[in-house]
Amino acid sequence: MEHNLEHTIALLTRTPAALDALLRDLPEEWTHRNEGENTWSAFDVVGHLIHADRTDWMPRARTILEFGETQPFGPFDRFGHVHECAGKTLGQLLDEFARIRRENLDDLRALHLTREDLARRGLHPALGAVTLGELLATWAAHDLNHLHQISRVMAHQYREAVGPWSRYLGVMSCGRHSGS
Amino acid sequence: MEHNLEHTIALLTRTPAALDALLRDLPEEWTHRNEGENTWSAFDVVGHLIHADRTDWMPRARTILEFGETQPFGPFDRFGHVHECAGKTLGQLLDEFARIRRENLDDLRALHLTREDLARRGLHPALGAVTLGELLATWAAHDLNHLHQISRVMAHQYREAVGPWSRYLGVMSCGRHSGS
Repeated sequence: MEHNLEHTIALLTRTPAALDALLRDLPEEWTHRNEGENTWSAFDVVGHLIHADRTDWMPRARTILEFGETQPFGPFDRFGHVHECAGKTLGQLLDEFARIRRENLDDLRALHLTREDLARRGLHPALGAVTLGELLATWAAHDLNHLHQISRVMAHQYREAVGPWSRYLGVMSCGRHSGS
Repeated sequence: MEHNLEHTIALLTRTPAALDALLRDLPEEWTHRNEGENTWSAFDVVGHLIHADRTDWMPRARTILEFGETQPFGPFDRFGHVHECAGKTLGQLLDEFARIRRENLDDLRALHLTREDLARRGLHPALGAVTLGELLATWAAHDLNHLHQISRVMAHQYREAVGPWSRYLGVMSCGRHSGS
């Protein structure tokens, strides 16, 4: 389907509550284990989502609206979650994600973006010209990308426990293609 | 990690609320579209989870406890969701999933399974000998397998909308390895 701002907002609105329902108070064996060295746990992914909401999506949307293609987006720190997570519990991260997402969506709605606005172009430092609509669609798809990752990382913890059923569970053979 | 019954129950308890938070009242463009012919939408997957809770996990657990390896499990109908979904709204399916999961977990807890029980073996018609612990671990991993599928199917709907960002979103290039 084409990008539709209301559909994007509908998805973005639901992600914090979905992750909260899945992860809050779950044993740390599920939430704090990863897929091996230099990979992320569900806890790390929630920190990454907070960091992206803080530094990526809305700041880049404002850059497009203010500067168009004359100023590239600033860099995104893929390890920014380390700072977000330091000293926090998963419950605190889930609270923080819900709060920052709500604020960002309030800000997004307040922009009253038109179809013409969504077609405005900005400059991604690696991808080149992108539209505001593509940026906002990517915000939603990025949530799904990391929900996909979280479900894979958690399933990985039971790769031995399921015994011979592992061959029937595609998630067990999914490559690490949704972010390390 | 090894199979741990409390961890399995903790995960199984949360899945219905997580899917409810993600999917309820979301536009049908997200929930009722699939990845092409003979593939499933998020709506179909919820129907499949209901069907599996109704006919697979607890009935097979009881078969192991009653018959051990002397009687193989009955077949599972991978298209049983068609009947589960017929004439229903997604909201009705989410309500039904929450209800049947709660009942099944009440039944599971009432069995007061011991470590010895979890080591008891049953006979899978294709996989051969499996333990009750493996069956219950697979129940939890199967939830994650289909959460992984739902996030992939939904992301697929924005494969064009994200423009050049698709190359950064691993979920867009994930094979259909978690169930059709």
